[in-house]
Amino acid sequence: MINLTCDYTCGAHPKILEQLQLTNNKQTPGYGEDQFCTKAKNKIKQFINMPNADVHFVVGGTQANTIAISYILRPYQAVICAKNAHINVHETGAIEACGHKVLALNDDNGKIYSHQIEEYYNQHKNDPNHEHITQPGMVYISFPTENGTIYTKNELTQISNTCKKLSLPLYIDGARLGYGLAAIDNNLTAHDIAKLCDMFYIGGTKMGALFGEAIVITNNKLKKDFRYIIKQKGALLAKGRLLGVQFLTLFNSNLYMEIGKNGCQTANIIKQGLTNCNIKFCYPSTTNQQFPILPNNILEQLKKYIQFELWHPYDKQNSVIRLCTSWETTPQQAQNCVNIISKLMQNNNP
Amino acid sequence: MINLTCDYTCGAHPKILEQLQLTNNKQTPGYGEDQFCTKAKNKIKQFINMPNADVHFVVGGTQANTIAISYILRPYQAVICAKNAHINVHETGAIEACGHKVLALNDDNGKIYSHQIEEYYNQHKNDPNHEHITQPGMVYISFPTENGTIYTKNELTQISNTCKKLSLPLYIDGARLGYGLAAIDNNLTAHDIAKLCDMFYIGGTKMGALFGEAIVITNNKLKKDFRYIIKQKGALLAKGRLLGVQFLTLFNSNLYMEIGKNGCQTANIIKQGLTNCNIKFCYPSTTNQQFPILPNNILEQLKKYIQFELWHPYDKQNSVIRLCTSWETTPQQAQNCVNIISKLMQNNNP
Amino acid sequence: MINLTCDYTCGAHPKILEQLQLTNNKQTPGYGEDQFCTKAKNKIKQFINMPNADVHFVVGGTQANTIAISYILRPYQAVICAKNAHINVHETGAIEACGHKVLALNDDNGKIYSHQIEEYYNQHKNDPNHEHITQPGMVYISFPTENGTIYTKNELTQISNTCKKLSLPLYIDGARLGYGLAAIDNNLTAHDIAKLCDMFYIGGTKMGALFGEAIVITNNKLKKDFRYIIKQKGALLAKGRLLGVQFLTLFNSNLYMEIGKNGCQTANIIKQGLTNCNIKFCYPSTTNQQFPILPNNILEQLKKYIQFELWHPYDKQNSVIRLCTSWETTPQQAQNCVNIISKLMQNNNP
Amino acid sequence: MINLTCDYTCGAHPKILEQLQLTNNKQTPGYGEDQFCTKAKNKIKQFINMPNADVHFVVGGTQANTIAISYILRPYQAVICAKNAHINVHETGAIEACGHKVLALNDDNGKIYSHQIEEYYNQHKNDPNHEHITQPGMVYISFPTENGTIYTKNELTQISNTCKKLSLPLYIDGARLGYGLAAIDNNLTAHDIAKLCDMFYIGGTKMGALFGEAIVITNNKLKKDFRYIIKQKGALLAKGRLLGVQFLTLFNSNLYMEIGKNGCQTANIIKQGLTNCNIKFCYPSTTNQQFPILPNNILEQLKKYIQFELWHPYDKQNSVIRLCTSWETTPQQAQNCVNIISKLMQNNNP
Repeated sequence: MINLTCDYTCGAHPKILEQLQLTNNKQTPGYGEDQFCTKAKNKIKQFINMPNADVHFVVGGTQANTIAISYILRPYQAVICAKNAHINVHETGAIEACGHKVLALNDDNGKIYSHQIEEYYNQHKNDPNHEHITQPGMVYISFPTENGTIYTKNELTQISNTCKKLSLPLYIDGARLGYGLAAIDNNLTAHDIAKLCDMFYIGGTKMGALFGEAIVITNNKLKKDFRYIIKQKGALLAKGRLLGVQFLTLFNSNLYMEIGKNGCQTANIIKQGLTNCNIKFCYPSTTNQQFPILPNNILEQLKKYIQFELWHPYDKQNSVIRLCTSWETTPQQAQNCVNIISKLMQNNNP
Repeated sequence: MINLTCDYTCGAHPKILEQLQLTNNKQTPGYGEDQFCTKAKNKIKQFINMPNADVHFVVGGTQANTIAISYILRPYQAVICAKNAHINVHETGAIEACGHKVLALNDDNGKIYSHQIEEYYNQHKNDPNHEHITQPGMVYISFPTENGTIYTKNELTQISNTCKKLSLPLYIDGARLGYGLAAIDNNLTAHDIAKLCDMFYIGGTKMGALFGEAIVITNNKLKKDFRYIIKQKGALLAKGRLLGVQFLTLFNSNLYMEIGKNGCQTANIIKQGLTNCNIKFCYPSTTNQQFPILPNNILEQLKKYIQFELWHPYDKQNSVIRLCTSWETTPQQAQNCVNIISKLMQNNNP
Repeated sequence: MINLTCDYTCGAHPKILEQLQLTNNKQTPGYGEDQFCTKAKNKIKQFINMPNADVHFVVGGTQANTIAISYILRPYQAVICAKNAHINVHETGAIEACGHKVLALNDDNGKIYSHQIEEYYNQHKNDPNHEHITQPGMVYISFPTENGTIYTKNELTQISNTCKKLSLPLYIDGARLGYGLAAIDNNLTAHDIAKLCDMFYIGGTKMGALFGEAIVITNNKLKKDFRYIIKQKGALLAKGRLLGVQFLTLFNSNLYMEIGKNGCQTANIIKQGLTNCNIKFCYPSTTNQQFPILPNNILEQLKKYIQFELWHPYDKQNSVIRLCTSWETTPQQAQNCVNIISKLMQNNNP
Repeated sequence: MINLTCDYTCGAHPKILEQLQLTNNKQTPGYGEDQFCTKAKNKIKQFINMPNADVHFVVGGTQANTIAISYILRPYQAVICAKNAHINVHETGAIEACGHKVLALNDDNGKIYSHQIEEYYNQHKNDPNHEHITQPGMVYISFPTENGTIYTKNELTQISNTCKKLSLPLYIDGARLGYGLAAIDNNLTAHDIAKLCDMFYIGGTKMGALFGEAIVITNNKLKKDFRYIIKQKGALLAKGRLLGVQFLTLFNSNLYMEIGKNGCQTANIIKQGLTNCNIKFCYPSTTNQQFPILPNNILEQLKKYIQFELWHPYDKQNSVIRLCTSWETTPQQAQNCVNIISKLMQNNNP
């Protein structure tokens, strides 16, 4: 049985667990004020080549988004995002629970574009009743998106320029950042990402850590008192060292990017293999999530060999499923996955 | 100059001001615990023929909506409404500021239907990740809607039945309730409205009062401690008597419905008159708001004679405007309005 | 029967009602964008001699406080105030409902002093766990206080200097501002008040208006987008003109200060008269609220002649009551009040 | 150097880390729907002997408190607690950030008593302005308290009875529950705790886990939809299994209570030893936190041998320090600690 349900079905990458073991008896101060955190932060600043950035570790992605957005916005402001953005559809209203409306724009395979942001902004600004309408106060995008797609350097630069022009801080949800950076068609460096936005987070949970996300702040105006809101939102881990040790392991060597590459390469084996079988994909993903469209009548059989997530119906005969690779997926497993689906398709269409 | 901008361009109906004058020197307790409020509440209960209802007065509509919704919902729940609902687009995120997401469904000229509510509810319930998605916790509709349309008895009964079946309290925003009840094609009584929902409010501001809305609670489970949340939201008027006196004046005689009728009748003069000139309307309103589609090149001229609100562009050559009648609009003004537009149209199309 | 329960037992000062009557048929834009509001704002700016101040009208005091505080504070910040401050004890947790802790300091008859603010600030700042403790973000005081006392110019200047030094905006709740300014021992001008704080509000409800408070912003950094939050909190009155007309009436002539003086002078008659009868007062108030300590066994009798509020027990034999004068209290009523209590006391102590 | 700063200076108890290692490669569903969580929940239900309880795992204590309190309270309600309660002073206003006031009662070495709760409740209820005052909606206590003290069975039973009588759900913060249960003078069983309250949490972070707290709900009315609010507050761990594995390790054998006992026994060595040296303690703690009063002039010397936390000044010459033992403190370390302090005291008082 191959499990491609999601990128967090196992514990941690063995190297991370090993470091947790090795450092377990070392006594440190709590709440992220230990040596491991300091070192890990420095390694991350090197990775993004931004020595002046601030780095904060939190446990999970919903926490990271809630903290960032409630820190950035004024009480009457809202966050612009894609309709299928995680904050709009999969965080049980965490942003609204902090008092802010989520302004969802139609997305193109998970992406929104600079012209949409500008249009929305101007529409609000020019409305004679604009004071009766929530004011757009920032932009949230994810890289990669919920559909596994990524922004090109040109697209992200345009969004960044628009945001600067309109004084809208740009925040990037990087839950799967490593898979985005490692995508075969990606032309953005980690430094580009950091430079083009005001705040983003580097996902650990889906990239081989037990848990943990690193919020990076590159805009100096958004740095003051940030730890207060982390604590208020219940995200200041008592044994903060656990986050330090994990991120230090990921960024001390090239481990983070190796994990990213493995996810993309194994996903690509699946993508190429299924394409060769004339299977279509719902979204043009080049990262570790692939969304093939399969006939409903092979799904029951498929479940015997592969664990996957049923995404949504495509039409009466077909469904979109998600196959999600990770640091632990092997090329052999990816090839087996192709072979299994291919065989089921042949039996299905004699 | 005829002012049809909105239904709150003047002060109050003269009878209301007269009563405020007559009662001015009478000393009463504060915060709505006076004789005027008690009497007004009784008159409202008679009007809706629901002796066991609870009635609370607040100053404005955004207050009424915020109070009702934040009282009804649990922290992880959201309110279902139409896309163009007042709470979704014209209250600067007041609902979100209380912690709740607004779930906006596509509307049909401002209306949503029972099958949409049920579909949304089931889609959420059947989603394997439903705990990651805000839970629908109540339904908000307005009567009349933002487009001036009204629900039929059949439509509202179906919504009510669906809400009961799904345990979703139904709340009706009645900012312009009197115009809805007085509409020529309306087949709902005030009692029907009260019986079919769990909570609603009877608008005063747009119906001839200086200000004030009467929240009516018909579901016993939603009555406890209601005044606490009114106070917390800053809506417990110190001189609560002012609300009592006004609503007593509106409901002591038939004044409320007379105001409603005048609004609808004068709006109907405009509707019929413009229809006779082959002018089309954007929404099939039978209440005091009419939305004719007029050529852009007569609008500048029109502004010299009539004050109106530019609603939105219709196409390149035409715009939708709003003409809004009220208790103070006379049939003669309505006819003059028709004559003016008719004449401008003739000059425009020689 | 003389009613001294509070300063809002009647409707409005006759001159205000007269102006509402006279302007009733005039058509104006809504939401405070009318000529009356503009004129009233200018008069207020003249009154405080601050031509660059921003003035916004809202309906009530809890609204004013909620709006000001939620505008000023960051999400992890709290407001410092006196233990018996209105925001701490009489607004049903309205400030907390906006997400902010209320940091209550021990008060001296309703007043707090600059050294207390500085001590609290430093204690927080120097705590090694300060990030785990809500950060003080502003100071709230009231003038007069809940006990009817007022700050001297020296005291307020010291608070102001401390607040500036510590970057804590100073907000003054002026629900009864006019009574404070008119107090016999007051040495602060309206201009002083405005200059020494960053934001304050001029109370109307308790000073002869039907309702309404004028928020005044003197710190330029606290002006941006203020109307958004007014709307979000349900405090942007549709017929905003009603607030404009009332404040214009209060400040067009010297009416506001005349009302203040009448309240203080009649209260002073009571104070002097009762003092002459050897009655003690619980708080050294020089404004329109007086808190005499009376034997419990005269209270039932007293209720037959005077309506008052039972404040709290003083000891086993005595209670503190509140006698509250207003614009409508006459010197004769005040003297009658003294005579009645005096007589009851004589009968009580033969 | 002996580190007695707090009970979370290290990683995890070796047995926990071992289990995380052993289960690392096992693939499971996310978000706590795995076998480890199910088993751990069953073990906890056995431990408290409450087969019908609901158990939910979250990452940290501030999360647990925020989730429980925002789930239980209505928007206009507040939580009663001790003045030095963690939620009142060390969570950066997390409760207020969810909209609720914290009503802090004077504590007796961290404890509050049933009569205080009843007095506060009645004072609110009988206040004629009670609707203007936040309504008490639940009671929060901690076991052990912030001062290391514990409630007796009699005291807790009385609190429980009062809470039931007043319909105030009782919630117990058990961040250090195991140390409380293991205290030499404790007469409460885990079952008693569970039975006497409506909800509580079993702390893991301070009891040898890497992180994690188990919220236990014993009141059936407080169980519905609980996972929604966990997700909304960002506390639904993606790799929920990590919590399951840890709590399974703690409760599969007697490990949890062994850790508790070790903390108490080593603390007791310190307590007895220092008492024999005539050192006084600030609070009568019998759990793993001890608060001796030491002369200021030995503290610098002491720091060379022992890491501790400076709690607060006692008087001009003395300070209160906290010595905190844990699962990893050995009896030898405890004795060494006594010896070191004893020696410094002797040198200090020749």
